[in-house]
Amino acid sequence: QEFQKDSISKWDINYGGKGIYFTAPDNAFSLHIQSRLQFRFATPSDNDPVTFNDFNDGENSVFKINRARLKVGGHAYKPWLKYYWEYELGRGNLLDFRVMIERWKWLNIKIGQWKIEYTRERRISSGAQQLVDRSILNRSFTVDRQQGVELYGRLEGRGAADVSYWAAVLTGAGRAATDNDDKNLMYFGRLQWNLLGDVLGFGGTSDLVIHQKPEALIAFSAVTNRSPFTRFSSSGGGFLTDFEQQEPGQYRINQGNIETAFVYKGFSWQSEVHHKEILDKLNGGRTQLRGYYAQAGYFAHQAISWWPKQLEVAARYANFNPDIDQPITLDEVSLAFNWFFNGHRNKLTAEVSSFDYENADNTLENELRFRLQWDISF
Amino acid sequence: QEFQKDSISKWDINYGGKGIYFTAPDNAFSLHIQSRLQFRFATPSDNDPVTFNDFNDGENSVFKINRARLKVGGHAYKPWLKYYWEYELGRGNLLDFRVMIERWKWLNIKIGQWKIEYTRERRISSGAQQLVDRSILNRSFTVDRQQGVELYGRLEGRGAADVSYWAAVLTGAGRAATDNDDKNLMYFGRLQWNLLGDVLGFGGTSDLVIHQKPEALIAFSAVTNRSPFTRFSSSGGGFLTDFEQQEPGQYRINQGNIETAFVYKGFSWQSEVHHKEILDKLNGGRTQLRGYYAQAGYFAHQAISWWPKQLEVAARYANFNPDIDQPITLDEVSLAFNWFFNGHRNKLTAEVSSFDYENADNTLENELRFRLQWDISF
Amino acid sequence: QEFQKDSISKWDINYGGKGIYFTAPDNAFSLHIQSRLQFRFATPSDNDPVTFNDFNDGENSVFKINRARLKVGGHAYKPWLKYYWEYELGRGNLLDFRVMIERWKWLNIKIGQWKIEYTRERRISSGAQQLVDRSILNRSFTVDRQQGVELYGRLEGRGAADVSYWAAVLTGAGRAATDNDDKNLMYFGRLQWNLLGDVLGFGGTSDLVIHQKPEALIAFSAVTNRSPFTRFSSSGGGFLTDFEQQEPGQYRINQGNIETAFVYKGFSWQSEVHHKEILDKLNGGRTQLRGYYAQAGYFAHQAISWWPKQLEVAARYANFNPDIDQPITLDEVSLAFNWFFNGHRNKLTAEVSSFDYENADNTLENELRFRLQWDISF
Repeated sequence: QEFQKDSISKWDINYGGKGIYFTAPDNAFSLHIQSRLQFRFATPSDNDPVTFNDFNDGENSVFKINRARLKVGGHAYKPWLKYYWEYELGRGNLLDFRVMIERWKWLNIKIGQWKIEYTRERRISSGAQQLVDRSILNRSFTVDRQQGVELYGRLEGRGAADVSYWAAVLTGAGRAATDNDDKNLMYFGRLQWNLLGDVLGFGGTSDLVIHQKPEALIAFSAVTNRSPFTRFSSSGGGFLTDFEQQEPGQYRINQGNIETAFVYKGFSWQSEVHHKEILDKLNGGRTQLRGYYAQAGYFAHQAISWWPKQLEVAARYANFNPDIDQPITLDEVSLAFNWFFNGHRNKLTAEVSSFDYENADNTLENELRFRLQWDISF
Repeated sequence: QEFQKDSISKWDINYGGKGIYFTAPDNAFSLHIQSRLQFRFATPSDNDPVTFNDFNDGENSVFKINRARLKVGGHAYKPWLKYYWEYELGRGNLLDFRVMIERWKWLNIKIGQWKIEYTRERRISSGAQQLVDRSILNRSFTVDRQQGVELYGRLEGRGAADVSYWAAVLTGAGRAATDNDDKNLMYFGRLQWNLLGDVLGFGGTSDLVIHQKPEALIAFSAVTNRSPFTRFSSSGGGFLTDFEQQEPGQYRINQGNIETAFVYKGFSWQSEVHHKEILDKLNGGRTQLRGYYAQAGYFAHQAISWWPKQLEVAARYANFNPDIDQPITLDEVSLAFNWFFNGHRNKLTAEVSSFDYENADNTLENELRFRLQWDISF
Repeated sequence: QEFQKDSISKWDINYGGKGIYFTAPDNAFSLHIQSRLQFRFATPSDNDPVTFNDFNDGENSVFKINRARLKVGGHAYKPWLKYYWEYELGRGNLLDFRVMIERWKWLNIKIGQWKIEYTRERRISSGAQQLVDRSILNRSFTVDRQQGVELYGRLEGRGAADVSYWAAVLTGAGRAATDNDDKNLMYFGRLQWNLLGDVLGFGGTSDLVIHQKPEALIAFSAVTNRSPFTRFSSSGGGFLTDFEQQEPGQYRINQGNIETAFVYKGFSWQSEVHHKEILDKLNGGRTQLRGYYAQAGYFAHQAISWWPKQLEVAARYANFNPDIDQPITLDEVSLAFNWFFNGHRNKLTAEVSSFDYENADNTLENELRFRLQWDISF
C-alpha cells in the first residue's frame, strides 16, 4: 500500500474503444475493462463444412452465445510498460496474456501468449470482422495463439520506405500449453510494407473512418514449427483431418502467406494467399495445402445518397485445396450486411454463404448457410 | 480510444445494491461490479433428499464455500441498452449473460442466457432467499437458465388492471449449451397480475422495506419444451430419477405454475402450485409430477417491541409428488431465522428442516437437517 | 440501488501494492483489483525432481505463463469487514476466497478458503518469493489452501512479550473441496514470538525496505488431519509417492514446523524444520518425513558501493528425507539473483539449482537446473 500521493480529482475516468479507462494523473498507471458478448443464430448449422460428409448432414439451427469475453489491460510503472489479458467466460479459457514494452516505435518487445500476427484475418478480433466470422481458410492455416517472445516495430524511411516487422520465437504448442513436446521451437516472421505511409493496423477491416487519403499494405509472413500439431485454434493445438496421429515432434510445418489490404473513402479490400507444407517426420510423406481469399466492403452511402450511413455491404470469395496432389476443392462465397450502431462495439451482421465442394470424381456438393450475429462490447 | 470528452470531476462513483458503480456524466455508460460469497454449514448433509435411499444414508456434515460470484453489469451507448453477466468462480461457470433493451416500460427485449421468470422462487437470487435455499420443488420443476430471446413489459391499466408479461423463445437445452438437439424449441410465457398497483419484483421475498401499503401478485406461467432433458439446474440440462435415457428430442415437457405473493408491514407471503407432464416420445409413456409450497416471513419487531429489528422469522411447507400414479409423497417443513446485517447483502441464516417420505407400502422415513449460512456481497 | 449520497469528488482512487484502489469517502467501502502475470523459462525442466527416476529423464526446456492471477479485495459496510478472492485465470481455479473480521488487533476472525499460515515459505505469495519458487520441502509438507474458520491476532505484552497466534478448524479436504470424506476435521495452530517487537508478516522475505532496526521471529506450528490425502497443492488434496490408495479417512497426518526469520540492513534470513507423520488407519503402518531449509538474501549495495541498489543475491539449502526409516536423502542448493524494478510487483529472477539424490545403496544422482522468471503485477 505504498500509495502515490495523488488526489482523485486528477484521475481520469473515461470510456471508449476498450471499455472503461482509469488513468492516474502522472500517467504511470492505467486500467481498462471491457465485456464483450456475441450472439449468433445460424441455419442450417454454424460450422464451415470441412469434408464431403459435412455437407447437408442434417444438423440443427443454432442460437447461441458464441463469445463472452472479459478484456483487461493497461499499463503500470511506465506508460510504455503495457499488459493485456482476455478471458473467454463461456469456456473458462485464458486467451491473451501478454506484456508489451513499447518504448520506441522501431523496437518493441512482447512476451506472453497472443494471436501471432501471421495473418490479418486471424489477428483482427472476432468482434471487428467484416463478415460474421473468418473464411474457410482460417481452420487450416491459422497459427492462432502461441506463447513466446517477439520483437516488432516500424521503420519509417523516406517516402514509401515504410516498413513494419514482427519476429518471434514461440513454443509452438498452442494456447494454454505448459510443456513443449520436444526441443523444437516455432519461428515466425512478418514483413509489411506500408505503401502509402500510414499503418493499417489490426483494429478491423471495414473503413469505418472513411479515409480521405488511400492507405494500403503488402505483407509477407512465414512460420516454421515442429510439433505434434497440424493446426491450431483457440482450443490450442489440434489436428487436420487425416493427421489424427500426434506424436511429439511428428510434424514439421512450413507455411507462408502473402496479403494485401487497402482502404479509401468507405471502400476496403483485403486478400491472403496461403501455402502450407506438412512433413511427417515419423512416417515420411509431404502434404501441401493451398488457399486464398479476397474480400471487399463498402459503405455505399459514399456513392448512393439514400443508402444508410451505418450500413456496409461486404463480400468474400475463398478457395481452399486441402491437398494439392488431389483434385479436391472447397470454396466459399459470402455476402454480408453490417449495421454499425456504434462501430464494431455494437454491430449487427446478416450473412449468407454458399459452400461448394468438388472432389476427385467430380462429385459436387453445395450448401447454403444464413447467419445473423449481434456483437456488443460494454 | 475514441474518448467522449468528459473530465473526471463529472463521473459518479458510488456503492449500493449492485456493488460499486461508475457512471459517466452523460449517463451513456455505466459499470457495476460486485463479488458475492456464500458460506454454508449443513448437518447431517446439505442436499435435499430425493429418493428413499437418500434418507439417513450416513452422509457427512459439510462446511463449504457454496457460492462465489462475480457480477458485472451496466449500460452503454444509451441508458436503456443494458447488460449483465454473472460468473461462478468456484466452478468456472458463466451463469447469466444477457443484453436488455429497456426503452419502454411496456415493451422490453432480452437476449442471452438468464434464469427464466418461470417461478419467483427460482428467479430470486440465491442471495435473496428467505430460507437457506429453495424448496424441495425446485429440483424437479425449475426451468433454470436458458438461452434465447424474450419480450416483456408492464401494461398499466386503470386501477387493478395492472399486468406484467413475459414471453420467450428459447433453445431449451439449458445453461452453457452450444447446440440444440433437434429443431424443437422451448416456449415460455408468464402473466402476472399486480393486484394492488405496484410490482413485486424478483429482488427478494422478505419485506425488508416494511411496506406501509399492501402489495400482491397472482401469476400464471407455462413452459413447453422438447429435448433430452427432464430437469434443469445451474449445471445445465439433466435428468430426473428414472429418466436416465437421454436421446435427442426424447421428452416433451409441459408444465405450469400458479403463484401468489403478498407483502405488508414486515409480513411476506409466497406460494407456488406446480404441475409437470413428461411425455416419452421414444418409448411412449406419460409421467405427471405435482407439488406446491407456501412460505411466510415476518419481521416480528412490527408486533413485538423487544424483537430485534434485524431479525426475521420465516417458515415453509412444501409437498411433492414425483409421480401422481404412485402414492409417493415427499414433504418439507422448514423454519428459519434471518439476521440482516445489511439487507440481503450481508445476512446470516439459521434453518432447521424436517423431510418426510411416504411410499406405496406406507413406509415412512424422516430426516432432520440443520443449516447455517452467511451470505455477503461486496 | 440504495445509494449512499456521496459525490465523486470525495472518492479516492489510487494505485499501489494491491493494484488500483477505489475508496469511498466514508471509508465504508473499498475495492482493489490487480492482475499478476508470471513468465518462466526453465532448463532442462521446471519441476523439482521427486524420485530417482526424475533425474536426467530427458525432459524439455520450458517457456510458459506459469501464473496468471486476478486478485480482488476490499471492504464493505465497515472498514474492518474485509474480503479477498484470487482466481487463477490460466487453470480456471478459484484460489483464495475469504472474509476477515479484523476489528481488534488481538482477535480477528477469518472464514473461507486460504493458504493456512502453517509455514512462511508457503504463505508468502509466489510473487514475493526470494528465489524463483519454493524449496523442495514444499511439495511434501505444505498444507496449502483449506476451507474453514480461524481466530488470529497479536498479543502485545511489554518488551519481548509480543506474540502472534493463529488457530483454525478446517475441513482438511483441500482447495475447492465441496464435501468432507468423513467426520474428521483438520486442526491447525501457530504461535509466533515477535522477538524484537515488530511483526515480520507474510508480505515477502527480502528486506526490501532495508530495516535499520533488526526484526526477528521464531514460530512453531502444528497440524493434524484425517483424510484420504497425504499432501496438498493448489490443485487440492493429492497423494505422495507410495500413497496412491486414497480411501475416506485412510490417513492420519500429524506434522509440525519450527521456523525462524530475521531481517536487518538489507540482509534477510529464514529457516524451517519439518516433521510429518503419516498413519495408515486402513492397513496400519507409519511413515515419517523430515526436512529443513535455510535461506538468506542480501542487498549487497549495503556493503559494496558499486553493487546495484536493485539487485539482491539469495541462496538456499534444503534437505529432505521422504522416509526416515530408509536412507534416502534429497537435497537442493540454489543461488538466485533478483532485480527489483518495482519491488515484488516487477521483478526478474535468475536462479541456478543443484539437486542431489542419494539412496539406500549409495547411488548418487545429480541434476543442475537453470530458471529465469519475470513476475509482474498491474
